Amino acid sequence: MSQNSGKASIVLKEPVYILNSASVVGTKEGQGPLGLLFDKVGEDDMFGCAAWEEAESSLQRDALGLALEKAGLEPEDISFLFAGDLLGQSIATSFGLSSYQIPLFGVYGACSTCGEALLLGAMAIAGGFAERTACVTSSHFASAEKEFRFPLGYGNQRPLSATWTVTGSGAFVLGNEKALQEMRQSGAGHGRAQITGMTVGKIVDYGLKDSMNMGACMAPAAASALERHFIDFDSQPEDYDRIITGDLGKIGQKALIDLMRERGYDISSQHMDCGIEIYDPESQDTHAGGSGCGCSAVTLSAYILKQLEEHNWNKVLFMPTGALLSKTSFNEGKSVPGIAHAVVIERITV
Amino acid sequence: MSQNSGKASIVLKEPVYILNSASVVGTKEGQGPLGLLFDKVGEDDMFGCAAWEEAESSLQRDALGLALEKAGLEPEDISFLFAGDLLGQSIATSFGLSSYQIPLFGVYGACSTCGEALLLGAMAIAGGFAERTACVTSSHFASAEKEFRFPLGYGNQRPLSATWTVTGSGAFVLGNEKALQEMRQSGAGHGRAQITGMTVGKIVDYGLKDSMNMGACMAPAAASALERHFIDFDSQPEDYDRIITGDLGKIGQKALIDLMRERGYDISSQHMDCGIEIYDPESQDTHAGGSGCGCSAVTLSAYILKQLEEHNWNKVLFMPTGALLSKTSFNEGKSVPGIAHAVVIERITV
Repeated sequence: MSQNSGKASIVLKEPVYILNSASVVGTKEGQGPLGLLFDKVGEDDMFGCAAWEEAESSLQRDALGLALEKAGLEPEDISFLFAGDLLGQSIATSFGLSSYQIPLFGVYGACSTCGEALLLGAMAIAGGFAERTACVTSSHFASAEKEFRFPLGYGNQRPLSATWTVTGSGAFVLGNEKALQEMRQSGAGHGRAQITGMTVGKIVDYGLKDSMNMGACMAPAAASALERHFIDFDSQPEDYDRIITGDLGKIGQKALIDLMRERGYDISSQHMDCGIEIYDPESQDTHAGGSGCGCSAVTLSAYILKQLEEHNWNKVLFMPTGALLSKTSFNEGKSVPGIAHAVVIERITV
Repeated sequence: MSQNSGKASIVLKEPVYILNSASVVGTKEGQGPLGLLFDKVGEDDMFGCAAWEEAESSLQRDALGLALEKAGLEPEDISFLFAGDLLGQSIATSFGLSSYQIPLFGVYGACSTCGEALLLGAMAIAGGFAERTACVTSSHFASAEKEFRFPLGYGNQRPLSATWTVTGSGAFVLGNEKALQEMRQSGAGHGRAQITGMTVGKIVDYGLKDSMNMGACMAPAAASALERHFIDFDSQPEDYDRIITGDLGKIGQKALIDLMRERGYDISSQHMDCGIEIYDPESQDTHAGGSGCGCSAVTLSAYILKQLEEHNWNKVLFMPTGALLSKTSFNEGKSVPGIAHAVVIERITV
């Protein structure tokens, strides 16, 4: 089904299709530049729940429910679920998705989790282990502030390098050729895009310790994965309509472009960052941009896949980035290592 | 390479080999019944580090290093690493394994993580995406107490239903037929066992809320995965020399045997629990037994694989169990859902 030459990359011999997907976001994201594209925008960020963590769980539950509905599928049509979030012990996922009763692989890659889940979900299908899988990730501004930084009531100030954790969840239903044809015959849709290759990231640690500047902490990991990808696929920046990172923000974007230039690649024309796209820098000042597991997931579902569907783009490299810190590691004075996983996503041509 | 009939189970058409493995444990585990079987026992539980979390990271680093050495391999021989631990944001893994520079898939399934990592590591090979992968998991008594319960200095009392988190890490190097033959030709070993099938677990939540009785919380998930496994593989308890859970402990074991009896299966002759085996109930009173990601991992490496290698057993079902709680979910009054993943491990016959 595929090849691996002992390197970090895989070219899928048969593509894996993104049958359908869904995005659910909070009020701030709904008021942003992509607001009209999301499937569901909450009336408030509690989503009718008693705690932030429960609200985040409900985001995941709604996103997967919507994605299945849009694909005309039931939970029992999905063989395996690949899902995760930013909270300790991934509780948004455990409490959000248990009602679906789909066999679950919990994944953790900080804000790169959407990429990791898509890689594993696609591998399970391309390896012949499943006809359909689903991938779900989420983040929530308030649960993340509580998990990583300060209680909201503390009213702390944020430096200009800080990003704002996106309240949102994206869910993706993947399938093989047979699943795509069955969906088309049922009239539930044409399929949104196809995954054709991937590069799995390594942990990269430049020793940076500023958890309020995660863009700078993650940019080296993005550069490492991107260089590896270009080498393994013998490709160039021009081969992609967009090279899309998850949540580097403005400072991380500049760092990545510089790091790639040092490696001989100019990605300034192709680079796009979901964290920069999701909020309006004028009316929604979030400092460096948006971040979180949900940031890249909802932008992929609402905006990126739409561009591929509408043939505005042919091929993108989707590369969510993660900062592998915890409040314990931060308080113990450890660095903030990064990781990034790259997914080649193309428009469906048949 | 394999079949999936839309159910949770996979039969591997070609087995995936456990080329070699290693176990590193703390002093208490070294003094237990399996003490002499572990590859490395720490002189104290800090392992020369400044913090419990760092000590846990060093366990993972040592376990993977030893497993690679025993298999006669270098880090660059491994395509992908599947690893995780119990700490928030899996920091034991991030800081423990980054120096190996192996592409990483972070996984989280609480104490079932060793099973989850083996499933994904085997799928990556059986799917043709890698010749060799490695799987690493860990837990540490002190970092887990801090993460989930009370600071050690608080001196809290533990109820009789509580388990003792194992300080230890197990690492497993998996490979395909080609990798096995290459290792044999190099004289580095014969291969320890083969993975021939798997059943992926679902989250099962009976609404139990006692985090000091995790055996009872996890037993329903083990029963669910085990029943699914028997049905999907058309097998019976007698088909396995042992059916091995990770860390149900004495109370969970009784619950699992009862739950399976209700489903028409008597597993009382085959059932074994790593958490019961790892400590001596007389001289090392840990109440209900041992637990943690490391518990099943080090028992698999040190004891279970040895029985298969020495032909004392032919076939086991290795089924680590996880309790999907966090201190936040516990403090918010949520239940403790469980999950369990089953791996069919057989002795190598050729």
